[in-house]
Amino acid sequence: MRNLCMTVNYDGSRYNGFQTQPDGNTVQDHLEKAIATLVGEKPKIHGSGRTDAGVHAVGQVFNFMTDSPIPADRWPLALNGRLPRDIVVTGAQNVPLEFHSRRSAKRKTYRYTINANQYADVFLRHMQLHHPARLNVQAMEEAFHHFVGTYDFTSFASRYSQKQNHVRTVLETRLEIDYSQTRPHTRDQGILHFYITGNGFLQHMVRIIMGTLIQVGEGKHKPDAIPGMIAACDRSAAGPTAVSKALTMWGVHYDDINFQDK
Amino acid sequence: MRNLCMTVNYDGSRYNGFQTQPDGNTVQDHLEKAIATLVGEKPKIHGSGRTDAGVHAVGQVFNFMTDSPIPADRWPLALNGRLPRDIVVTGAQNVPLEFHSRRSAKRKTYRYTINANQYADVFLRHMQLHHPARLNVQAMEEAFHHFVGTYDFTSFASRYSQKQNHVRTVLETRLEIDYSQTRPHTRDQGILHFYITGNGFLQHMVRIIMGTLIQVGEGKHKPDAIPGMIAACDRSAAGPTAVSKALTMWGVHYDDINFQDK
Repeated sequence: MRNLCMTVNYDGSRYNGFQTQPDGNTVQDHLEKAIATLVGEKPKIHGSGRTDAGVHAVGQVFNFMTDSPIPADRWPLALNGRLPRDIVVTGAQNVPLEFHSRRSAKRKTYRYTINANQYADVFLRHMQLHHPARLNVQAMEEAFHHFVGTYDFTSFASRYSQKQNHVRTVLETRLEIDYSQTRPHTRDQGILHFYITGNGFLQHMVRIIMGTLIQVGEGKHKPDAIPGMIAACDRSAAGPTAVSKALTMWGVHYDDINFQDK
Repeated sequence: MRNLCMTVNYDGSRYNGFQTQPDGNTVQDHLEKAIATLVGEKPKIHGSGRTDAGVHAVGQVFNFMTDSPIPADRWPLALNGRLPRDIVVTGAQNVPLEFHSRRSAKRKTYRYTINANQYADVFLRHMQLHHPARLNVQAMEEAFHHFVGTYDFTSFASRYSQKQNHVRTVLETRLEIDYSQTRPHTRDQGILHFYITGNGFLQHMVRIIMGTLIQVGEGKHKPDAIPGMIAACDRSAAGPTAVSKALTMWGVHYDDINFQDK
């Protein structure tokens, strides 16, 4: 018995999220099926975290126990040949038996992308929220930084969250603006990539943060309203849940294991 | 009567090319239908050139005559609201009555993209040829430059080309390599963007050039075999027609009109 750990990228557009659902058609289902056809075992894989339907991943991590003798570095190509084209395993390594993708994870990073140029990007429309109307980007960035810290994030969690404890630590927030497609003398505002790193995230947390930031950008809230929203511990204090397609799980960090997948 | 000229980006994945076909479902069909629902005329639009089924465009140009009084700068948003999400009009301007998108075009640029990293890019797989096996990129670049000049390109045209004259001028070839996703200590070779500019291109010409360059990269031909292939004026002297999805019409150039669409 060995413990194999892998990284996987996926375009979540066609899937009901990462984790197995009664309806099927999840990334986990496809991975388990590919592993089963490769080695004839019925593995149960453990993902570092769920992603919602439509959410993408670059460097999602999963692990599973196997008796297969296939060397770790042979697995990615072998699995990719058995997976749909929108799921690509990009790395595999042997890890200690006690390693668990979710429980061992120290930090996770997500990226949310708003295309604030006047026209949608036809090639990346499946992973951007298009918001051509004017946004106060500076206010959004200021509001974003108010999320850094250890708080009870009940206001920013789905009402259906089943977690007992809603205290999480956001370690870093960072806005990167890509002006490469911005045309001079237009109302183009760039492509806004919001990166957020934390020790864990509640259900819909990043999407509710983003829905709230968009309201800040639209002038509906001041940036310094964020601490009060957090303190309210009430979902109705925060903004709406932003659309899932613009969200990408951007990597998982462990203490002892280094994934060079990007 | 006025002559309106527009730029359009499209993801060609779902379409039978730009130009109207008996089977329908072309980009032109969708544009004409959107214009018809907007202004109640049945316009006939003129594209700067055809693109094959599956080929994309950034800055394709078309023009048409209209009696509509709608100001030019209102057209893009009005049409985009009536177009599928994978076709986006990005600019409109009034042009002289004698302007014709194809006949007035002086130069066109195409881009062909080969992902030579070990793993496919799940997010851009619809516009990249994935070639993880080793390529001699330097030889490909050298071969690419052999196409610059004025030649009879019969060897690099579809056998079904209906043009009388196969002489064309290739003005510039340029290779850009994107290493941003290249992981150290792997066989990743980067994402190769091949740009080619000419006064016009024959049917399948860029794709046959690329199919031949890939053979050069695989060591099947030396770069200096290209001049002989061109001189043969025989389709069978050149390589295969590379897959269409990796090809993007990258812009059209006119003497007097400047499109700032990128």
